[in-house]
Parts: sequence; C-alpha cells; structure tokens
Amino acid sequence: MSELRYCPIKNRWAIIAPERRLRPLEFLVPEAAGMPLSPEADPFAPGNEDHTTPEIFSLPTLDASTSSRWQVRVFANKFPALRVEGGVTREGVGLNDSVSGVGAHEVIVECPESAREMADFRVDEMLQVLKAWRARIVDLRKDTRLRYILIFKNRGSEAGASVTHAHSQLIATPIIPSVVAQELKSAREHFNRKERCLFCDLIHQELELGARVAIETASFVALTPYASALPFETWVLPRRHGHDFAAADDAELRGLAVILRDLLRRIRLLLEDPPYNLVLHTAPSPHPRPGHPDDWSTIDHDFHWHLELVPRISRRAGFEWGSGYTINPTAPEEAARHLKEADPDSGSGGG
Amino acid sequence: MSELRYCPIKNRWAIIAPERRLRPLEFLVPEAAGMPLSPEADPFAPGNEDHTTPEIFSLPTLDASTSSRWQVRVFANKFPALRVEGGVTREGVGLNDSVSGVGAHEVIVECPESAREMADFRVDEMLQVLKAWRARIVDLRKDTRLRYILIFKNRGSEAGASVTHAHSQLIATPIIPSVVAQELKSAREHFNRKERCLFCDLIHQELELGARVAIETASFVALTPYASALPFETWVLPRRHGHDFAAADDAELRGLAVILRDLLRRIRLLLEDPPYNLVLHTAPSPHPRPGHPDDWSTIDHDFHWHLELVPRISRRAGFEWGSGYTINPTAPEEAARHLKEADPDSGSGGG
Repeated sequence: MSELRYCPIKNRWAIIAPERRLRPLEFLVPEAAGMPLSPEADPFAPGNEDHTTPEIFSLPTLDASTSSRWQVRVFANKFPALRVEGGVTREGVGLNDSVSGVGAHEVIVECPESAREMADFRVDEMLQVLKAWRARIVDLRKDTRLRYILIFKNRGSEAGASVTHAHSQLIATPIIPSVVAQELKSAREHFNRKERCLFCDLIHQELELGARVAIETASFVALTPYASALPFETWVLPRRHGHDFAAADDAELRGLAVILRDLLRRIRLLLEDPPYNLVLHTAPSPHPRPGHPDDWSTIDHDFHWHLELVPRISRRAGFEWGSGYTINPTAPEEAARHLKEADPDSGSGGG
Repeated sequence: MSELRYCPIKNRWAIIAPERRLRPLEFLVPEAAGMPLSPEADPFAPGNEDHTTPEIFSLPTLDASTSSRWQVRVFANKFPALRVEGGVTREGVGLNDSVSGVGAHEVIVECPESAREMADFRVDEMLQVLKAWRARIVDLRKDTRLRYILIFKNRGSEAGASVTHAHSQLIATPIIPSVVAQELKSAREHFNRKERCLFCDLIHQELELGARVAIETASFVALTPYASALPFETWVLPRRHGHDFAAADDAELRGLAVILRDLLRRIRLLLEDPPYNLVLHTAPSPHPRPGHPDDWSTIDHDFHWHLELVPRISRRAGFEWGSGYTINPTAPEEAARHLKEADPDSGSGGG
C-alpha cells in the first residue's frame, strides 16, 4: 500500500507508491509510451470495457450512429497512486511522518474514438467532459476522508501520458496539496486585508492592461500570467466570481468549453501539437474543521476556480529542481500576442 | 534583459529570460540536444576555447601528456539566464513585482575530454571539479548584489543538458531561491527549538535506522531520504557539521570526491546510465542584513551543506505540476538497498 511521506527539511509531501511500478512508463523505459494504438489494442476503446476496472460513471453517447454506448467513461486507475480502501492513519517516528495512502485515482476517458484529442472536440463533446469532472467531484466530496480532489490531463508522453486515447485523471488526497494550499493562503490573506478576491483583482488588472490577455469571451478570460513559469503557460478564469468549479451551472460550463476548445486549438497550431498538462484548480472539499487554519468550509469569497494549461516544450533541469525558480524563455506578453493572433481555424498544425 | 517576476498567487519567482531563446534546446526542438560530439565540433574541447566566452577561471591539467592546458575551465554561459551588468532594481505595478535579472550564469567544464563523464573520473579529477566550485563561490560572494550561488549539473539531454561534454553550471541570484529558503527556514526553526542541527539529527537517525543508508564512509554518508520525491533520489552529507561548502578544506573535498564517484558509478550501473541532476545546497552569501529575517550572516549552527542527486527516470506530469506532490514508485529503502549492494567496479552498465 502506498503512503504519503513528509519531508521536514523541504516542507514537502511525496507519495511513495511502489504499486505504480507495474506501470511500464515509470521505470527506465519512458520510450515505451505514446505509441498510437489501434482500436483493438486500445484499453480505453468501446468494446474493451472489460480491460479496465469497473465503470464508476459514464455519460451516454452524443452520436447515435456509433457503436459506443458512452461519450465519457470513468473508472479507477489500474495502477493507482492512492486507494479508496482503509482509514487514514497518521504516524510519526523521529523526523519521519507518514499518512496512509488513502484516496482515489480515477481515469476519465473523454471520447469513444481512439485517435481524437481534446482540441478536436466539438463544444458539446467538450461540455460532456466538464460535466463528468463536475459529477465526480460532487460524488467524491461525500467522503470526508478526502480533503482535495485534483483533476488534471496529461496530453502526450512528454507530459506523462502513458495511453494515447484522450483522457483526464482525478486524484483525491487526504491532505490539501501544497500548490493548492499556497493559492488558498495567498487568496485568503489578500481577502482578509482588502475584502476583495485576489483573482478578481488579477482579472480586472489584466483586462485593463491587455498585454497578457490571450482570449476574452463574455464569461471567461484566458491569460498568460505575469510570472509564467513555463512558455505559453495560460490560465482560464471565469469572469464571474466563483470559488467552486463543482458549483458552476451548465451555462458556465458551456462557456468554459468554448474558450478551452479555442485555446487548445491555438496552442496546437502555434507550438506544433505540443505535449501539455491541464489542471483544474478549485476549492477543497468543504468539510468543516472548526478552529483549524485548514477549515475551508467558508471559502466562498476568497478563492476563484480556474484552469491552468502548461505546454511541455522545455525541460525542467537541475537549476529548476535546486532553486524552485523556473527559467522561462518566452515572455508572457509575447505568448499572449501569438495566441491572440493565431487563427485556430486555419489548420491543425500537426497531430 | 531578463527579469525575475513574482507571482502573488503561487508565492513563486520565475526568471523571464527571452535571450535564452537563442539556445536551441529550449523551444520546440528538444530532440536536437544530446548528440555525442566529435572533439572538433565540441565547443567545450581544448583548442576550441575561442568558441566560448572569455575564461573566468581554470585549473591546470593533471596529465602532462595531453594537449590540454587545463583540467577544469570556467566561463560565462553564452545564453545566460541572468547577467552580471547593472544594478538590482525592484519594481511593483499593481499585482506585478519584478527584480532586474542581475546575477551570474557560468559553465564549469569538468574535464578536457569530450566523451568522458563524471562517473569515469579518477578521485583526483573529481577533486579538481569540487575545488573549482569552491573557488567560484568564494569569488562571487564578494559581489553583495548576489544573495545565493547555486551550483548544479545536468547530465543527459533528458535532464536538461544541451552539450554532452561533461560540465556543471553556476547561477547566482539577487534573491534566495525558494527551495533553499525553505531549507534554511526549516533548519533555523529546528535549531531555535532544540539547539541542534536538523541535518545532524537526520544523519544520526538514519545511521541508526540503516534502511536508507546507501553508502557510508569515514567522513560522508549517502542517504535516500525518507520522503524521496523521485526514484533513487540521494543526498550526500558530510558527517561533520558544516554550513558552508566553500569553507570545506581539501581533505573534506577529497572525501566528497570519493563518495560522489562511488555513488555515480552505482547509479550508472543500476539505472543503465540515466540522465540526472546534481545540486549543491550550501549557505547563502553571508552579507549582513541586520534585523531582516533573511539575514543569514550568522547561520553557522543551523544549516548543513550537502549534495542532492536526482536521476531523471520518471516524468513530472500534470498531477505533480498541479499538486506539488510527486509520485515516487520506488521506496527509498529499496533504492538504498540496491545502491548498497551494487558493485560499481563490475561494469559500467552503459554509456
């Protein structure tokens, strides 16, 4: 069984997950991943449902003419980093602290076809993926052991995908991940000082300045953040304040589907179909923890859900690992300008 | 000119360095790097000294029979992330904070031969590299604009190296990098509470427990840390307390050369010549900043210099990026056992 371990020097958690070693990608053979699959060999294709763990959730097909019953399908990861079984035990011996690896690790297959990718989706197809994300968060929040539900997508083997069939993943953890915890802390401090949302202030400022606005719609904005860690890093934020993706209604999800599709097509065109990671940042599970600094049950004013997209076109080397800095050779203003000027309908630019 | 930019949401700095775009590795063509070079085409080879920026430092050859004047040679990076020229200006506009990209970015060529790597070095050759690191830190500390001097090595294109000739790099920054700042903070808090060094406590505990000790010599220990972020992550620590690598004497550096050579050979054997990053963690520049929480001029008791080695055999995917967690499929106890049992003299295992 895996466990979460805390490093008192780095103030950082690692998930030690020996079971993941069964996964061919992770140990010494990274080149094995990323091969395009025939539908017969594709474990995520319709007809191969028995190659996966049991189905947890699905949404029906949008296209009555296909043989697939489902449009989006969710099941547990075969090589999970964390498992649902068991209680959360917390132990300390000397300098070593551990928490049992309780959680959830799910795969969300985003379309029935083996060789389509998210940037190819129609808006209504994209919307089904976002609805599946929302449904899984709502469901898993019932489990009070789980403090945070992280949804992310790895596209391309360079970004960590081991299966080419379009899919996203969900990992629910008994601890709020440090990246999210830092955002919550920054936003709460800002709100406590100013009684305004930090992200709303950011959106307001960036729309006024303009130089880092990549795409703007009635309900969303796509920004290349001022201190972008990587080239073409882009955040997609709802213009209307809301702390929780799971509370977004269908109209808002449709607005997100429109801008996300547009952004993915521009990125594909500009960067020649790059590998990328897409991560949903939303509020933690709202289980009350009265008096505890990690009580996020009353977070509605001081967080703002959003998506973060990072193309993986440069490598993380020793300097980044050793310093925590990143070196970004593309100014976000330049990235925003290219994204704004790209015509996503002019061709696919690859893949 | 590059600049350091601060993200108030992530509490994180990025170096925006458009000049680095000249470097072929960094933008869209990662596969161009890592080709073995002939000595004629190798910009770091003896005879091609005029292909680099002017020499800053060198140590004479150890082998009178070669045509090379030098054993180790240091010069400024041709595509620097930071530059020495100019004052440090700090600016803020709205939510955006920046610091001018003043610093230093140097290349330390580790041997004259184009195709040898650090694991092939004799102890006396390794020692010259460590002496060069020490000399560059001592020299750059005279510059009071520079708060930290980070030395690191990227071996293999997967680890970020763009030239195959064995080399390490140095980046000096006007801000203490967050990874180092966190270690300083953890160590100071531990010391303030217990009047003991956190790292000395760790060494004591791990030597007693044994399961994560990879190599032990009279003066050094190589540990796979309890919360290892990546498979076979290994820290090399001096057993004698010392906060500053630059204050280590020749005998201590020789002890480090012995254990580092041994470790690199075991890693090469076990992981089939993997790409890796090696990072030196040492005290910040000791310029006094009275009354400031970042005054590290009196740090001698509460930090402990060390080397960190991370083989790059697994990828950082969306989950890691979005959470700050890493998923490590190899328990450090297992890594330590393999390292301990490996016979570095039994063959090179590749490359």
